[in-house]
Amino acid sequence: MEKIRLAQMGGGIGAFIGDAHRRGARISNRYELVAGVFDVNFERAKEFAQKEGIDSNRTYADIDEFIKGELQLSESERIEAVSIVTPNFLHYEMAKKCLENGFHVICEKPMTMTVEEAETLQKIVDETGLTFALLHTYTGYPLVRQMREMIRGGEIGEIQRVDAQYYQGWINPIVHNGEVEKVWRLNSNVTGVSSCMGDIGVHAFNLIEYTTGLETTKVLSDLNKIGNSVELDLDGTVLLRFNAETKGVIRSSQVATGEENNLTIAIYGSKLGLKWSQEDPNYLFVLSDNKPVERLKPGNPYLKELGIISHTMPPGHPEGIYEAIANIYTGAAKSIKGEEYFDGEFPTVLDGVRGMKFIHNVVESNAKGNVWISL
Amino acid sequence: MEKIRLAQMGGGIGAFIGDAHRRGARISNRYELVAGVFDVNFERAKEFAQKEGIDSNRTYADIDEFIKGELQLSESERIEAVSIVTPNFLHYEMAKKCLENGFHVICEKPMTMTVEEAETLQKIVDETGLTFALLHTYTGYPLVRQMREMIRGGEIGEIQRVDAQYYQGWINPIVHNGEVEKVWRLNSNVTGVSSCMGDIGVHAFNLIEYTTGLETTKVLSDLNKIGNSVELDLDGTVLLRFNAETKGVIRSSQVATGEENNLTIAIYGSKLGLKWSQEDPNYLFVLSDNKPVERLKPGNPYLKELGIISHTMPPGHPEGIYEAIANIYTGAAKSIKGEEYFDGEFPTVLDGVRGMKFIHNVVESNAKGNVWISL
Amino acid sequence: MEKIRLAQMGGGIGAFIGDAHRRGARISNRYELVAGVFDVNFERAKEFAQKEGIDSNRTYADIDEFIKGELQLSESERIEAVSIVTPNFLHYEMAKKCLENGFHVICEKPMTMTVEEAETLQKIVDETGLTFALLHTYTGYPLVRQMREMIRGGEIGEIQRVDAQYYQGWINPIVHNGEVEKVWRLNSNVTGVSSCMGDIGVHAFNLIEYTTGLETTKVLSDLNKIGNSVELDLDGTVLLRFNAETKGVIRSSQVATGEENNLTIAIYGSKLGLKWSQEDPNYLFVLSDNKPVERLKPGNPYLKELGIISHTMPPGHPEGIYEAIANIYTGAAKSIKGEEYFDGEFPTVLDGVRGMKFIHNVVESNAKGNVWISL
Amino acid sequence: MEKIRLAQMGGGIGAFIGDAHRRGARISNRYELVAGVFDVNFERAKEFAQKEGIDSNRTYADIDEFIKGELQLSESERIEAVSIVTPNFLHYEMAKKCLENGFHVICEKPMTMTVEEAETLQKIVDETGLTFALLHTYTGYPLVRQMREMIRGGEIGEIQRVDAQYYQGWINPIVHNGEVEKVWRLNSNVTGVSSCMGDIGVHAFNLIEYTTGLETTKVLSDLNKIGNSVELDLDGTVLLRFNAETKGVIRSSQVATGEENNLTIAIYGSKLGLKWSQEDPNYLFVLSDNKPVERLKPGNPYLKELGIISHTMPPGHPEGIYEAIANIYTGAAKSIKGEEYFDGEFPTVLDGVRGMKFIHNVVESNAKGNVWISL
Repeated sequence: MEKIRLAQMGGGIGAFIGDAHRRGARISNRYELVAGVFDVNFERAKEFAQKEGIDSNRTYADIDEFIKGELQLSESERIEAVSIVTPNFLHYEMAKKCLENGFHVICEKPMTMTVEEAETLQKIVDETGLTFALLHTYTGYPLVRQMREMIRGGEIGEIQRVDAQYYQGWINPIVHNGEVEKVWRLNSNVTGVSSCMGDIGVHAFNLIEYTTGLETTKVLSDLNKIGNSVELDLDGTVLLRFNAETKGVIRSSQVATGEENNLTIAIYGSKLGLKWSQEDPNYLFVLSDNKPVERLKPGNPYLKELGIISHTMPPGHPEGIYEAIANIYTGAAKSIKGEEYFDGEFPTVLDGVRGMKFIHNVVESNAKGNVWISL
Repeated sequence: MEKIRLAQMGGGIGAFIGDAHRRGARISNRYELVAGVFDVNFERAKEFAQKEGIDSNRTYADIDEFIKGELQLSESERIEAVSIVTPNFLHYEMAKKCLENGFHVICEKPMTMTVEEAETLQKIVDETGLTFALLHTYTGYPLVRQMREMIRGGEIGEIQRVDAQYYQGWINPIVHNGEVEKVWRLNSNVTGVSSCMGDIGVHAFNLIEYTTGLETTKVLSDLNKIGNSVELDLDGTVLLRFNAETKGVIRSSQVATGEENNLTIAIYGSKLGLKWSQEDPNYLFVLSDNKPVERLKPGNPYLKELGIISHTMPPGHPEGIYEAIANIYTGAAKSIKGEEYFDGEFPTVLDGVRGMKFIHNVVESNAKGNVWISL
Repeated sequence: MEKIRLAQMGGGIGAFIGDAHRRGARISNRYELVAGVFDVNFERAKEFAQKEGIDSNRTYADIDEFIKGELQLSESERIEAVSIVTPNFLHYEMAKKCLENGFHVICEKPMTMTVEEAETLQKIVDETGLTFALLHTYTGYPLVRQMREMIRGGEIGEIQRVDAQYYQGWINPIVHNGEVEKVWRLNSNVTGVSSCMGDIGVHAFNLIEYTTGLETTKVLSDLNKIGNSVELDLDGTVLLRFNAETKGVIRSSQVATGEENNLTIAIYGSKLGLKWSQEDPNYLFVLSDNKPVERLKPGNPYLKELGIISHTMPPGHPEGIYEAIANIYTGAAKSIKGEEYFDGEFPTVLDGVRGMKFIHNVVESNAKGNVWISL
Repeated sequence: MEKIRLAQMGGGIGAFIGDAHRRGARISNRYELVAGVFDVNFERAKEFAQKEGIDSNRTYADIDEFIKGELQLSESERIEAVSIVTPNFLHYEMAKKCLENGFHVICEKPMTMTVEEAETLQKIVDETGLTFALLHTYTGYPLVRQMREMIRGGEIGEIQRVDAQYYQGWINPIVHNGEVEKVWRLNSNVTGVSSCMGDIGVHAFNLIEYTTGLETTKVLSDLNKIGNSVELDLDGTVLLRFNAETKGVIRSSQVATGEENNLTIAIYGSKLGLKWSQEDPNYLFVLSDNKPVERLKPGNPYLKELGIISHTMPPGHPEGIYEAIANIYTGAAKSIKGEEYFDGEFPTVLDGVRGMKFIHNVVESNAKGNVWISL
């Protein structure tokens, strides 16, 4: 099976998330990395390309050179898809230019800096019919996908309670040691209008909409900074309203001392409750009235098909986050190649628009004194 | 050591919570149950008394008979303390009359129906100097007490994030099977202005103030009913503000399908984070930046003294909720007998006032459209 | 309901296990402690009795005085049952004299020092028809009882694998700090022929036979001492053969550094596997081919009746080891009073005989070079 | 960095373990699969090669064709290393021929069918100086490596107790449904002298020697078959003796109903105890006398260097078994390329010899009536 020719924007030496995407692509086995703009520093970019075994002629200085160079190649040689893993503020321009020149896009989140940018990308994707996959990584875990299938298939009944959490503690020592300046994620010019909600709260939001299919209609937020050294939120709670009378809550913090990536989601329906935790991703708990709790594990035939195809080892052999990324890359590959795929095999540009609305409305609600804002 | 002569209001045949109090009192070994008004049905009350081996002459038809009868006895024979375990709406009258006649009170929560009643009791307790212990059961667990000592001793640093949860699912089948009428806890005349927040949310609130010493200054709530068959809240989220800039959240539900008594509390400070869960009460997790998580267990000499005295078995032998109740009864006994005791060995009438303010303000915030209400 | 008049042998000031029995008896609410030989030091015994509110006339200097004194009382006043909580080497004499004088016995384990003594007690119990309850505490946990009912009811199919563990670490610092002399449990004159297997390995053995109904036919052991400062085993593994072809293993240690009371049992049948752990006693895991793992919790109606009656709180409210002891005391009370009770509500003199055979044969197997010894 | 040219023996269409090796190699990013003998059926082999994008000229019909073909290529084109993932009985011949022709070998376990074959391979490796990596997969997990470094660095003190378990249940339905004939792992001609101990017990054995550095001096085993439909062991316990007085135990089963890959290891030293479980590989528990249990997680700077380099994600992002395989492939790559690497970055031919001795001696001990056999 011929591999998809992939380029990468960003992701050069020392870039953690770029490496993660490349690992995912390699596990997926559907891609071949052949070109890129790996670094703002062209010398470092070339050094990286050599290390990765990438043709120096296809290592470009910037996005415009990249597009120009690739378009000069024959269609059978030219890259087909671009993985965008730059800092947040560059996502929009990169994605827009790639799409406009006919390249499929696999983009790290958050998709853009503003809602308007997000909607522009959505429009281009709609018009071009190109594949746009947004790396909301956690949707790649098999048991998150199992949740989606169970909920959307009606197994848990009417949804009565939605609760998601994403707690980290890594900003805590940065704030207390006075190292805020060193961290680009705390700089609004690079990261956008929000730190905590923009970087991790939005993952919790995405998981809720991804698994339940509910559409959040309005939010009320209460954000926190922990002192004055940071201009952006580091912590907060968001009340959620969905269609009809369903309510929920998102809790998120980057100063929850000692937490690492404690992302959890609990969805309670009239028939069943479902609970999942990112740090123990290979367990899904199914709760019901007056029956023992069930603990599901990947690799078992009792799962839904989307859960089954997302784990390749026999049951009891844990897979991890790189396999989750790979599952999304595989879904995108199927779409790029025109193969059949499940709804839910990769988050789309729509998830990106929803996420940007969430982030901006959450910030606005807090700024206005914790009032409801419609998405 | 002579035992404290105890009476019980309510708690007769079939009354779960009355039995729980009696077990706690027996484990404590500081009390002797000698009198009571065990049931509104006097015949059933007498039947119960006989079964428990209680003198029929001290089994009374109502609170007034009880007081009259006991006051006729000599001081050395007369009861000294009263355990109040009736439905909520009777707590106030019972407690008031007991205090006014010189009896110490150990009262099930919620303390009263209204804030005014709560404040009246507080005034009487202040004036009489009698012991008033409120059964916020979970404060009796050794590792909750350990949390209190660590936080109040400054070990976790400045508090940055407060998050407590109390999820149950038992109302779910009641709502969906149309059995709401059968449950007194869903009747506002008996239970008060709130179901979920009044019965369990208030436990989460109490644990927060008990462990941290923070005083909640205002609340913003979003409550939910799940259909129209119940007049009271069955689910909700409460945003909390404390002194200064500290924020928190309480999440509570009685329709979280399949949950039993999933009460959790997480307090993150600038130095350490602490996490505890009621269904696994014999573990306390201590989180810090860049160090392994520590898991503390009762019975170990590395605990604070209040934690140590609250567990009598060697480490690795689990104690449970009856021992938590017993710990509170023991604390109350020390106070009744004028012995030294730790601050925190039993919740007081002040906890009751705080709890009633919480419940009423949470209901008001929701009714007014999710706005901040000062406690 | 009239309480059973109980005496206690041992259990005075500072005696942990005596206190545990008394707590269990109080929770059970079926007993009244009225007499005893609480200490070898009569002054300390009297001091203890006063503290507990026990009649000084019924506080005796030794077992013979005790029997003489009690027999002089009327039948309606005389004690009915005796709780024996002395160091091991006194159990036999105490139990024998009590039984021979018509008193029911509730005895701490191990029952005796030798198999012969155990068989003598069995004979006396058979002849007198008196109740003899042996405190294999862990059989009092509701989910251990649930295991028994499921296995004996055939739900797990034919048993294919038996694995039990009891790991502690408390002897480790004693050995390494040279404090062996201070610990009576390491003195064979007081404790018997084995330390690790006699004190805790036998609990694992008892749980296996209690839950499965299998009879161990032979054992092969490999014991360990960790240096030469202790004359008895501190660690070991025992291979087990049951009727037919079923095999199993017991692993036990008192020098498993950092372990507290890590007793576990796993029974795998042809249809289901069951797993339980003493430090998390409120979970029972049920495993099957190709189905999610089920996690059972006490207080739920889906349990077997013996499991249901052994937990009084609603589900999600943990009970602990004192309630397990209380459950055994309650079972013994039913037997003493001639009430109906479940097979399995208390371990009997037969469990004691089995346990003594296990301990002695395990020691013999090791001494003979790890060979099979028939029980 | 130039990739190592890799061939694969076996691993064609439908071969689970071959796919796992290839994923590991891709994650490692140090290899390029360029040739192989993928299937005994040459047509299927070619179909597989096409699907994987492998040159049809380098897809060979058998090992001899493979060697002949590759040797005709220039050194810069010729494969450098071979991944052997055939059924067990072919490992030896494949490995021997590869080594004798100058190719490095990465071999699935068990290494051979007999001890003699294993020792022959060891001799060839010694003589040629080629790299031989044995895929004892679980040694690739970061926290297993952390255990190794802590134990070998003396942090846990003298080892006092060793306990490892590998429980699976997958053979259970096969035995009870009469499908034994269909499973090559139950056929001694293909799999060797043991099923349970040869396939999984040996992993537990390897983990013990890998982490502790102890050398097992003798074994005493008790194996089980569960009926007569299988000629090989499906379950068993092995007593272990190490140098000096240290003892241990391995428990393993393929009929532990409902277990998936429940491999655990617990090593107790005089100072610390360490516990790890394969199904929750991202936690390592460190136990000590009188201190809280510590829970270590990968990605943290508090780990030893070998632990740190074996996990690339930030802490709290779980990696899984494919990353463990990749870590071993990376270690082998360093050795192949003459780079520096840690002792322990891949299991060697010596682990293979030890494993074969273990398997054969365990079978012999059982056959002789559960007697000690020296390794």
